[in-house]
Amino acid sequence: MEELTTLRHYLHQNPEVSQNEFETQKYLLSLLNKLNADKIEKTANTGILVSFIGKNFGKNILLRADIDALPIEETITTEYKSTITGVSHKCGHDGHATIMYGVAQHYAAQRPEKGNVYLLFQPAEENGWGARNVVADGTLKNLNIDMVFALHNLPGFKKHNIVCKTGSFTSSVVSLAAYFKGYTAHAAEPWNGRNPAGAISEYMLNALSLNAEEKPAYITVTPVHMEMGEKAYGISAGEGSVHLTVRADNNERLNKVMGVMRNMATEIAKKEELEVTFEVIEPFESNQNHPDAVNIIHKAANVAKLEYEGIADGFRFGEDFGIFTNIYPGAMFGIGSGEKCFPLHHPAYDYPDEITTTGITMFTTIQKEAQQ
Amino acid sequence: MEELTTLRHYLHQNPEVSQNEFETQKYLLSLLNKLNADKIEKTANTGILVSFIGKNFGKNILLRADIDALPIEETITTEYKSTITGVSHKCGHDGHATIMYGVAQHYAAQRPEKGNVYLLFQPAEENGWGARNVVADGTLKNLNIDMVFALHNLPGFKKHNIVCKTGSFTSSVVSLAAYFKGYTAHAAEPWNGRNPAGAISEYMLNALSLNAEEKPAYITVTPVHMEMGEKAYGISAGEGSVHLTVRADNNERLNKVMGVMRNMATEIAKKEELEVTFEVIEPFESNQNHPDAVNIIHKAANVAKLEYEGIADGFRFGEDFGIFTNIYPGAMFGIGSGEKCFPLHHPAYDYPDEITTTGITMFTTIQKEAQQ
Repeated sequence: MEELTTLRHYLHQNPEVSQNEFETQKYLLSLLNKLNADKIEKTANTGILVSFIGKNFGKNILLRADIDALPIEETITTEYKSTITGVSHKCGHDGHATIMYGVAQHYAAQRPEKGNVYLLFQPAEENGWGARNVVADGTLKNLNIDMVFALHNLPGFKKHNIVCKTGSFTSSVVSLAAYFKGYTAHAAEPWNGRNPAGAISEYMLNALSLNAEEKPAYITVTPVHMEMGEKAYGISAGEGSVHLTVRADNNERLNKVMGVMRNMATEIAKKEELEVTFEVIEPFESNQNHPDAVNIIHKAANVAKLEYEGIADGFRFGEDFGIFTNIYPGAMFGIGSGEKCFPLHHPAYDYPDEITTTGITMFTTIQKEAQQ
Repeated sequence: MEELTTLRHYLHQNPEVSQNEFETQKYLLSLLNKLNADKIEKTANTGILVSFIGKNFGKNILLRADIDALPIEETITTEYKSTITGVSHKCGHDGHATIMYGVAQHYAAQRPEKGNVYLLFQPAEENGWGARNVVADGTLKNLNIDMVFALHNLPGFKKHNIVCKTGSFTSSVVSLAAYFKGYTAHAAEPWNGRNPAGAISEYMLNALSLNAEEKPAYITVTPVHMEMGEKAYGISAGEGSVHLTVRADNNERLNKVMGVMRNMATEIAKKEELEVTFEVIEPFESNQNHPDAVNIIHKAANVAKLEYEGIADGFRFGEDFGIFTNIYPGAMFGIGSGEKCFPLHHPAYDYPDEITTTGITMFTTIQKEAQQ
């Protein structure tokens, strides 16, 4: 356990954002290569797939951990705090990767009784390219995978609790970027140009006013990014963009809100004599938990004597594991990080090391239960 | 003249932004080194000072041309259009540099009868660092400069007209950057963070509403730059900033507006539970034209048979030549670029080559008139 905590802290100190997990991959490979796995291969550029062949024929299970960090400057002051300015593990993927390494140690010591186990250290979950590239690479093609499982640490839930539900576990998410284009002028004579600042601000406020919580119906419009002009103080800006994520409790409402936002931006741009173009970015597919897979998770929790917490509503965050559950039957579950802790992506959130063994136990028990 | 037009077009094709005029400097040096100047030296890192010693003792005159381009993607389609994406000469400094090279040719052929002439190819006018660094370098220290002159091409005025006035020729300008700081959250749960998007938008609209034209009183607030968050669609943004330039017809009004803007930002930040800090950036000192220097310009225009156009109000744009006129008596004048053409910093503005000889004639005549 001490070794695993050391690993988690090492990963925390050396975070890398999506699609840049080169050092993370190298470090994990240096550890994994010491285990007598049946196959270790790179996938999706910065990811790793480790294969353990079962003693007997059985169900082949893919277990997945994401390994990427986020472009957030963290505020924790522990000895193992991030050494990279502006980058940190604020989604606990350092913990996920550590759990998966613990699972690898487990199967290195004893192969599964039945069925093969494939451990995927997946990069780039946060921007949705990791799962997509693993699939595109064809890495999983001839593995005859029967089921897929993944977990996520969950602040706000009792520590060690296993949180799950059938059907939509994480949301479908769409991001809408609106690009406003006018033209520059001297900053002394802005009337000679078409500056998008007013349009961008008006659009932003209008889009924020769409936020609504009429449970179970909801619309969540979140400003992610905005940029306009240059730090060139002689130039009245000529272009800028607004990047928003949009969530809703169902696809119909989501599409309706997207339409409203486009219309808003188009109207405002027209009024301000600007052009506007749109880009729809990184749709996370909703994560559909298969009833059989959820049953296996529930049984595994019972076997491991962990409290199982069924939830009524899925989470609003997107997760690219949805790309796998669209191909294979499977499920994602949560492990509570504690009721009173900072939320995911908060600059002060930190994965609790105590739940690492819980994660390892769950994955290895799930593999056994899946053979029944 | 053909040679000068070729030079202007070469500079136009190879624009470099403030403090990056390395290739421009290299190219100009390659030409200047062929002239038998008395001294050629680098200044302010990417600038050049060329000295010509007069045949007799007299008034020593500094003539200045700025050489930097702007971070603007131009839209002209001439053969000599910019070859650098996103950078172009939209303020006609390619023309200013060409005029100054023509002046160097003039004094290479015949030294001034009286007084030394110093030709300054000054970098980084657009961000105000060029004049400051020339002064800081001490390049001008032992030159016993008596007077300084500079010109600017002026769209909106009759081509070749000499435009001038005593006193404030260009404005004092201040830029105010407001940095809003909250904290990130998962984009699915923005309520767990403090996203500055609303505050930034509200502040921007409020600041824009301060624009007022009650001539001669005016306030010009121009949005130059805005940035917030990252293109990381899983993160609700935690920080962002708004960069505005502020101009007014006098310093009292300018200071008052700056105070109002700070208060606005502070109030909005408080309401949205954000921190806000401010930065005052790149103050251009107002360009004070000395009456003696303006007289010399007026006389030179008469001698050169050019129409002299006295103006009542100074220009609103800032010009770092104000740093020199705060140290030495001197003046800046304009040469009309034509009444019907695009304004300065417009993506389609282009310096008219016809006024190059006008500029050379004016500078060399001013040098003579200054000796009277």
